[in-house]
Amino acid sequence: MSPLPKYQEIYRRFRLAIDQGQLGPGDRVPSVRSLALELNVARGTVEAAYQLLVSEGFFEARGQAGTVIAGALPQVPVKPQPAVPSTAPGPRPLQMGLPALDAFPRKLWARLVTQQVRRTDADSLAMGDVRGALALRVAIANYLALYRGVECTPQQVFVCAGYAGCLTLLCDALQMTGQRCWFEDPGYLHARRLLVHQGVELVPVPVDGEGLEVERGMQRDRQARLAIVTPAHQSPLGVALSPARRQALLEWAREQGSWVVEDDYDSEFRYRGQPLAALKSQDVGDRVIYAGSFSKMLFPGLRLGYWVVPVSLVEAFGCSAERLQQRSAQLLQLTAADFLEQGHFTRHLKKMRQLYAQRRGLLVEALEVHCSGFLRVDEQAGGVNLLARLLVSVPDHVVAEAADRAGLAVHALSGWMLEPGREQGVVMGFTNVVTARDAADLAMVLHRVIAQCLSVASITTA
Amino acid sequence: MSPLPKYQEIYRRFRLAIDQGQLGPGDRVPSVRSLALELNVARGTVEAAYQLLVSEGFFEARGQAGTVIAGALPQVPVKPQPAVPSTAPGPRPLQMGLPALDAFPRKLWARLVTQQVRRTDADSLAMGDVRGALALRVAIANYLALYRGVECTPQQVFVCAGYAGCLTLLCDALQMTGQRCWFEDPGYLHARRLLVHQGVELVPVPVDGEGLEVERGMQRDRQARLAIVTPAHQSPLGVALSPARRQALLEWAREQGSWVVEDDYDSEFRYRGQPLAALKSQDVGDRVIYAGSFSKMLFPGLRLGYWVVPVSLVEAFGCSAERLQQRSAQLLQLTAADFLEQGHFTRHLKKMRQLYAQRRGLLVEALEVHCSGFLRVDEQAGGVNLLARLLVSVPDHVVAEAADRAGLAVHALSGWMLEPGREQGVVMGFTNVVTARDAADLAMVLHRVIAQCLSVASITTA
Repeated sequence: MSPLPKYQEIYRRFRLAIDQGQLGPGDRVPSVRSLALELNVARGTVEAAYQLLVSEGFFEARGQAGTVIAGALPQVPVKPQPAVPSTAPGPRPLQMGLPALDAFPRKLWARLVTQQVRRTDADSLAMGDVRGALALRVAIANYLALYRGVECTPQQVFVCAGYAGCLTLLCDALQMTGQRCWFEDPGYLHARRLLVHQGVELVPVPVDGEGLEVERGMQRDRQARLAIVTPAHQSPLGVALSPARRQALLEWAREQGSWVVEDDYDSEFRYRGQPLAALKSQDVGDRVIYAGSFSKMLFPGLRLGYWVVPVSLVEAFGCSAERLQQRSAQLLQLTAADFLEQGHFTRHLKKMRQLYAQRRGLLVEALEVHCSGFLRVDEQAGGVNLLARLLVSVPDHVVAEAADRAGLAVHALSGWMLEPGREQGVVMGFTNVVTARDAADLAMVLHRVIAQCLSVASITTA
Repeated sequence: MSPLPKYQEIYRRFRLAIDQGQLGPGDRVPSVRSLALELNVARGTVEAAYQLLVSEGFFEARGQAGTVIAGALPQVPVKPQPAVPSTAPGPRPLQMGLPALDAFPRKLWARLVTQQVRRTDADSLAMGDVRGALALRVAIANYLALYRGVECTPQQVFVCAGYAGCLTLLCDALQMTGQRCWFEDPGYLHARRLLVHQGVELVPVPVDGEGLEVERGMQRDRQARLAIVTPAHQSPLGVALSPARRQALLEWAREQGSWVVEDDYDSEFRYRGQPLAALKSQDVGDRVIYAGSFSKMLFPGLRLGYWVVPVSLVEAFGCSAERLQQRSAQLLQLTAADFLEQGHFTRHLKKMRQLYAQRRGLLVEALEVHCSGFLRVDEQAGGVNLLARLLVSVPDHVVAEAADRAGLAVHALSGWMLEPGREQGVVMGFTNVVTARDAADLAMVLHRVIAQCLSVASITTA
């Protein structure tokens, strides 16, 4: 339907490709014969286009060696091109939920990927298992038994594309659309959005110093089908779910026939006190569905998370996995399996535990020096995020928005709440704060931001 | 909550790991000190477990060199382990929808992956763009312009995890739940299941020798929000959508403000006659949403598909991509981009076109020799699947089920129909039929299967 003659259309496509940098000096172009075949046009049509491109200096004919893009290209744009916005910028300062990207053993990983991709045979180019590669499920089961006290068979493990993929599978397997689910308040924003999107009705249950207030949950909705908790370090408050609450939660689930999701996203990162057992390891009634992810343990771009489900749910999850057909690339699953089985995983976590404790310390100190009077950092024993309470009367979302404009990726605590108002603070990631200098710079920006918010507030009030 | 003393629990975990083969002869085990730290138990507890394992011959202490799993393991199982079923078997004979797995340039791919993974920097370990890696979107836009006559900017391209991921994004972006959609009858079974799962109401529209019967579609439901078509080679009938029907379909969409999805899944594979232009290249009203996938062009395990959406839908698709958070691994997206940009993609497609024409010929000939009287192969100009009509009066699903038991992955045509009964046949993939011998063997199995079905049918009738 192009209004241009065929040869001009071909000419224009090459001009666009050169303009956009997809074809560059020295690149070979298809032979006249093969392009004519590809486009199903007469050779003469392609020849006409090529001649025009040669005559204008975009192509260079090199006889037997074929035709290539010219070395010195004329600077004549075809037409104004819509700009391609620069997307996927690197992580932003204080961005939450990231591991220390600089500290990941990239060379080792590259070596494992290389070994694995060289072993790829024809059969493994096909789809693979919807439940995840068997080697990875075995490696996960073994890791969990040795390090998290969670005993399971590989059949109970379902590998998904990150936590988003995990939640999609969960909602399908438990048929959660229109069902009610206890949700920590404040609670993991990202999960909340995905659950709401899946049509799950969230029942906010407050969190205090002992974690989820199970009694309040039962008062609000005893019959909820599901409770989603972060027992190791509540997200974002960082508190651990107390032994009594754990017991109460498991009993509630057993009595009601409800399910408990344990999101064990960062339990390995605990910087003082004892590492906590997984709730799943205490789950005698088999009501806990355990979620793990490699996004924070390895790197987010890997997009690998997993469920460990009770034996009674293996079939339902298997059917849902078949239905949804959301597979992750085999190559990276097998590489992750190697990383676990060769012991790199536990070594890496150990290093990160030390590094994160140190980096958290850097940021806490900088905030205490530069933001005292504005912010007070919550005591937290672990995790990859840090919560600072606002000591001044500016709404936290105003601070977060101003910080965002200043380039900082902090979140308002109230934004993580289903019933806002009770808590005010800012949440931020510290894992990519490398030096004391970085920490001080960031804290000073935050100080300036809050000071400005305050002065605006005082003007508005005046 | 384990009833065992701690050291016995640790002992048992190692026994399980050895039994299941996760730890093997010569593998190093963690030092007492580090495991005690990991598990938060006294060193003495770990030592007790290790001593037991050494005394029973499972561990070997090697002094300074640490402790390793013993070379000759005692053959004493801990307890009967649930068997791990062997999953994800290779592709099955005649399986549909696969490229020729033996013919994919695995070494070249491994080289590109290796180069790409070595270039990975810290920032690219983060999540990446929800719309797909920019490099891949640029490469796709350029490929489509040069080879499919589809002009678009990289902003219009959305990379998803295979066609399943594509359909999920589409349904979300167009808010298809509860909406009506024309669906080819017979039509792509896999897509049908996913759409039904998303709550889309499918309106079956028959297909004849010219493809989708657009008139019938308008009679049945003029106001449908969407029509999904396979214009190059209808799936599974293999017919091309005629120029008049294309025109009618585009006009319908423009008048109604409806959308047309062009699933261009195998247009590159056409073995005789002229390659067909993409419907999208004729889409002056900008109503066509174009779907491409690398599952059949490269390999299914890659899990990469993409949309090209009209400019007016870029924002809606962008918001949905944000909401769904279904990203594909960066590494493989960037490798695919290299594969396209370095020209390997078009070279590979060209080779496959020749190979598939040849392999299709092998299977068609074998079916003509061994199944004449039972099956008649439909004339088809392209694609990766082949349709054979049943010439005998046995329901096609009976044949398909019997063939399945005999190891062949053929489908019943009626299973691909929303309104069954009109057509009877078997559909199969030919791309992995390597030799004339293979083809003959498969055809003979199919002959035997149909003959058996017939004899059973005659007994039942008698």
